[in-house]
Amino acid sequence: METRSSVHVARDRFHLAWDPAVPPVATVASGGVVDFDTLDAGGGQLTASSTVDDIGTLDFSRVDQVNGPVEVESAEPGDTLQVDLLDFQPADWGWTASIPGFGLLADEFTEPLLRITRLPGATGRAEFLPGIRVPIAPFCGEVGVAPPTGPRSTIPPDLHGGNMDTRHLTAGATLFLPVFVAGARFSLGDGHAAQGDGEVCGTAIETPMRVRTRLTVRKDLHVTGPEFLTSPAGAGLPIGRRYATDGIGPDLLGAARDAVHRMIDWLGREHGLAPGDAYLLCSVAVDLRISEIVDMPHYVVTAHCPLSIFE
Amino acid sequence: METRSSVHVARDRFHLAWDPAVPPVATVASGGVVDFDTLDAGGGQLTASSTVDDIGTLDFSRVDQVNGPVEVESAEPGDTLQVDLLDFQPADWGWTASIPGFGLLADEFTEPLLRITRLPGATGRAEFLPGIRVPIAPFCGEVGVAPPTGPRSTIPPDLHGGNMDTRHLTAGATLFLPVFVAGARFSLGDGHAAQGDGEVCGTAIETPMRVRTRLTVRKDLHVTGPEFLTSPAGAGLPIGRRYATDGIGPDLLGAARDAVHRMIDWLGREHGLAPGDAYLLCSVAVDLRISEIVDMPHYVVTAHCPLSIFE
Repeated sequence: METRSSVHVARDRFHLAWDPAVPPVATVASGGVVDFDTLDAGGGQLTASSTVDDIGTLDFSRVDQVNGPVEVESAEPGDTLQVDLLDFQPADWGWTASIPGFGLLADEFTEPLLRITRLPGATGRAEFLPGIRVPIAPFCGEVGVAPPTGPRSTIPPDLHGGNMDTRHLTAGATLFLPVFVAGARFSLGDGHAAQGDGEVCGTAIETPMRVRTRLTVRKDLHVTGPEFLTSPAGAGLPIGRRYATDGIGPDLLGAARDAVHRMIDWLGREHGLAPGDAYLLCSVAVDLRISEIVDMPHYVVTAHCPLSIFE
Repeated sequence: METRSSVHVARDRFHLAWDPAVPPVATVASGGVVDFDTLDAGGGQLTASSTVDDIGTLDFSRVDQVNGPVEVESAEPGDTLQVDLLDFQPADWGWTASIPGFGLLADEFTEPLLRITRLPGATGRAEFLPGIRVPIAPFCGEVGVAPPTGPRSTIPPDLHGGNMDTRHLTAGATLFLPVFVAGARFSLGDGHAAQGDGEVCGTAIETPMRVRTRLTVRKDLHVTGPEFLTSPAGAGLPIGRRYATDGIGPDLLGAARDAVHRMIDWLGREHGLAPGDAYLLCSVAVDLRISEIVDMPHYVVTAHCPLSIFE
């Protein structure tokens, strides 16, 4: 395959499993620029005019596809792939859903929920609910290289990256991934226009995305899992004043659930939101932090809601 | 007991368990100001000239005392106590230790570690390690009311508050706590000059602290656990650019441990820190966030290190 200094990966060049057996769609020189044109995490099954009924007929075998893989010349197992995230351009709309059986509170939110949001572009704010405007900070939920063995579902992330759903991987950030197979075989997808730390309902503001990256092989660096340098833009996300709710107990997952419950309660009593709307809002704008992980046998997980979204 | 509009709680008015049976040291009117003069979490056993050998002789029965309790007039079970955190004044020194058997990586850091830090006051930065300056953002690790039953150790936090070790509870923040017993019986202690989300080694920069609070009974509000409004100051903590490391796996605690391991590795390879120094630095300056909690069966916990501490 010809090695090029820049590559474009079209929307239809995707795969549905992380697997070293998936053949590369292109080969790029180390330091080369790769542009991706990706569908949303639903693989195009939802549109700006979809309704909640469409959640019931989603074909899950088409969910969380990733575009690529792109082979990077000279990458060998044990190297590190440096991924400079240069630009993200979301579509002019996105969707957020609670899908039965999926999400941190799936046992409570058993009915499908869907919200379509108009997006202003790669910056600014989007009106997620009437009067509630969420800051746009686009990134890809899925960013990864081929794992050592496969096939693996694209749903769980792992040390090769994948569905990390890490909202700090915005334009200007640099991600470092371990290389497991020759050529690294880099792919991405699952465009998110906005998300809180945790992505608690299971989806962000999901959107088709055009992405520009630079891929560089680092022979001098050996990482054992994903590491990253945040961008000035990501660092500058408006945190401002926040309202925060705690979950406290012997289990971090239970504490996280309790913190989100209390946030949903607060969004209801303070801002009049229905529980389902509040749950979706938590997923796109509320951050989960581990406040304390040492005072045994109880941990504290805190949900932080930026008050700027109400202004 | 006389009800006053302001109260001062002296350094020697402390208790060593959360317990509704502990009698109040004073009664304050709702809306009154309460000043506390607290020892450090070690109860005065460590000083600015302590050495690591003193960790071995710490009397743990005196650790994590809290000052109070102060009875708040008219507070009844089911009410909410609003705690306005008005001012924190740390001493001019603090200590950070890894105490054998305690901390997120206690199984690996089995030898005691101690670091004494000179503090510049309630703002500014403190040189925690040569050339590494940590932003000062003082708060109390312990803030709580009497639980419904007792006695309970002051180490684990619970829905009554207590040892929440939540670094966002700085001056200007407002904490809401559920009231379980008549008079609420409010106490605090465990002064921290600086801490990251998680407090991974088990201690922050521990320091004696003078604290000013306003305690107000809220009959109109019913919270079921701690909730808080962050202060502009807390919100303004310098987040800036960060280096971040991931832990990924089926268990949040294991993922948090992996994330901290990778951060310790990075602090070693990039900044030349010994593992013990890096572990203590993580506790006072590195934040644990839950990046993703829904992509079953794998979670992502991320440790964020602000790069400003190296500048």
